[in-house]
Amino acid sequence: MESKYPRIAVDVSGGDHGAAALVPGAIKAAKSRPMALKLVGKQEEIKQELSKLNLEGIDYEIIHANEVADMDDKPSHIMRKKKSTSVQMACELVKEGFADGVVSAGNTGMTLACGIFNLGRIKGIERPGLAAFLPRKEHPLVLIDVGANVDSKPRHLVQFAVMAEVLARDVLDVQEPRVGLLNIGEEQGKGNAQVNEAQPLMEKTSLNFVGNVEGREVFAGDVDVAVCDGFVGNIALKLSEGLGVTFSSILKSELKRGVFSKLGALLASSAFKRFRKTLDYEEHGGAPLLGLNGTVFVCHGSAGSKAVSKAMDMTAKFIEKEANEDIKRNLEANPEITRFKRLKKFLYPGSREQGGEEEEHAES
Amino acid sequence: MESKYPRIAVDVSGGDHGAAALVPGAIKAAKSRPMALKLVGKQEEIKQELSKLNLEGIDYEIIHANEVADMDDKPSHIMRKKKSTSVQMACELVKEGFADGVVSAGNTGMTLACGIFNLGRIKGIERPGLAAFLPRKEHPLVLIDVGANVDSKPRHLVQFAVMAEVLARDVLDVQEPRVGLLNIGEEQGKGNAQVNEAQPLMEKTSLNFVGNVEGREVFAGDVDVAVCDGFVGNIALKLSEGLGVTFSSILKSELKRGVFSKLGALLASSAFKRFRKTLDYEEHGGAPLLGLNGTVFVCHGSAGSKAVSKAMDMTAKFIEKEANEDIKRNLEANPEITRFKRLKKFLYPGSREQGGEEEEHAES
Repeated sequence: MESKYPRIAVDVSGGDHGAAALVPGAIKAAKSRPMALKLVGKQEEIKQELSKLNLEGIDYEIIHANEVADMDDKPSHIMRKKKSTSVQMACELVKEGFADGVVSAGNTGMTLACGIFNLGRIKGIERPGLAAFLPRKEHPLVLIDVGANVDSKPRHLVQFAVMAEVLARDVLDVQEPRVGLLNIGEEQGKGNAQVNEAQPLMEKTSLNFVGNVEGREVFAGDVDVAVCDGFVGNIALKLSEGLGVTFSSILKSELKRGVFSKLGALLASSAFKRFRKTLDYEEHGGAPLLGLNGTVFVCHGSAGSKAVSKAMDMTAKFIEKEANEDIKRNLEANPEITRFKRLKKFLYPGSREQGGEEEEHAES
Repeated sequence: MESKYPRIAVDVSGGDHGAAALVPGAIKAAKSRPMALKLVGKQEEIKQELSKLNLEGIDYEIIHANEVADMDDKPSHIMRKKKSTSVQMACELVKEGFADGVVSAGNTGMTLACGIFNLGRIKGIERPGLAAFLPRKEHPLVLIDVGANVDSKPRHLVQFAVMAEVLARDVLDVQEPRVGLLNIGEEQGKGNAQVNEAQPLMEKTSLNFVGNVEGREVFAGDVDVAVCDGFVGNIALKLSEGLGVTFSSILKSELKRGVFSKLGALLASSAFKRFRKTLDYEEHGGAPLLGLNGTVFVCHGSAGSKAVSKAMDMTAKFIEKEANEDIKRNLEANPEITRFKRLKKFLYPGSREQGGEEEEHAES
């Protein structure tokens, strides 16, 4: 590291609000935790947003990006044709050693593609996974994968687990994160083929694997990390978000009916504020894309400056704790879950394990 | 029908509360809507519960069941060894024409197995699907499948849709139910192989198919029916339930902090009551097992008498509207989604469709 602080490249062009959310969010974060900002996007937009803010003591730099990635652009198109988009350039800054991590509120698929292309995957990880933080009474729950992949193989689920366990430990400060496999019942043999094959693989790892967990139990605090396929995770997450919005809106409209309710709502307003804060997905920051040779956090498209700031804070913590190094150590401790090992076992079933963590992994 | 009222066989042994929830729930339902009750279970338990209730004008009958199905029993064991369990006997009552439908709070897998064994499937339906009602501001959302199957084939999703559309129409009184495919994005081509193959099949049906829907949109009222694989649906449903419980408990504990909040909560208590009522899964009744030659509703294991009563009410409505006949009509209108048709097309690719709805379908 050049700087003693985490250097974060912020793609300010993404999301529903663009620079108007990303720039103030980044500045806010840099005021509460030391970090160096590389603001990547249209120079004039960034300058305009900066002009509204107090920048005293902030270590920042503007990196002008010519092009903007549209939400409709295919990732492959961006990679080939639009090389100077902000998300591409932010990833390149990490690749070239000018930054330690990326925060983006753009299209997840695009960020993933740029991340893989520029940074590559951590040796032993076949598929990067997108993790999300879900609100709970105590520390949030880590849910992985919430949509970086669909149709994952059982061993991919185990790789997700190995990465998310580090996230819970390093970013949420959970001592020995308990890892569960999201399933439709707790008994062994429940669920689909994917989960049934993943379970014995999970049991072989050094993780604190507690077995199958049901969607209801994860909120009761039975686990710190819940692992599932990206299709399942994405749908479950969005359904929960939708339900959360529905809950709030129903409560709001109920509290507006009648004088007593209105008065009561007024009196209890600080309680409601705290309530909303716990539930607010914004409070729980971004979603880390785990498994890349570099730190990449994705914010919700609708993220406001508060959510961006929280994501920046988590990104900085992830970098400071050198979480990716911990992921590598976790993989070394569990060589059987990487593809190469499986291939080797298949090709030479009689050969003994040699702890060959140093060997090349086949990359798909 | 012998009786002019729906005759419902109630398996009172299932669920966390057994007869203590099922019997009063059934009696409550029979007071608000005309129905004939066949209470199936341990005679002494039923009599004890009945002795606490006002039975004036209730048309009921006790059918003694010797054996109880344990939650740990495998369905196959029940079918072969424990033939006189309450759930088996309740299904047999329908099979033999003594009842029109079954309500059970027992193990879903067991109820499904007994249902298939005794009643068989509707011609053209390969896999019965479990539907659930999710709370929304307007009428509830129908989500199908929430766990009757795992690893469904694309055409099974279409069969679920055809059945759930009838449910929304007949039981929720939605005029032209809009049907969506639960997916991780709205664009075509998004999602896993299963959903991608289901989409063109859906488009060919006579359903009001609106395309892919995301988990967040289903609560905004964009669709009336959301279709997904049973594994996805079960996890999403339970995660949502867990989040709902978490929400309520966080709100409760926040409202207990401080005098103003407590007072406010007291003043707004009627608003909270209405709020909880909307969110309460109990209010939305049981989950219908669609696709059987007979009406079968499953209550949540934790269902109290209120939930049971609501499920009974919906079961009666399902029977009165002859929803299973509507499902058959829906299938006849969409012959291409049944397996036989696919096989035929495969075997004789040149042959023209002859609308052969009357022909035998291969049953798996």
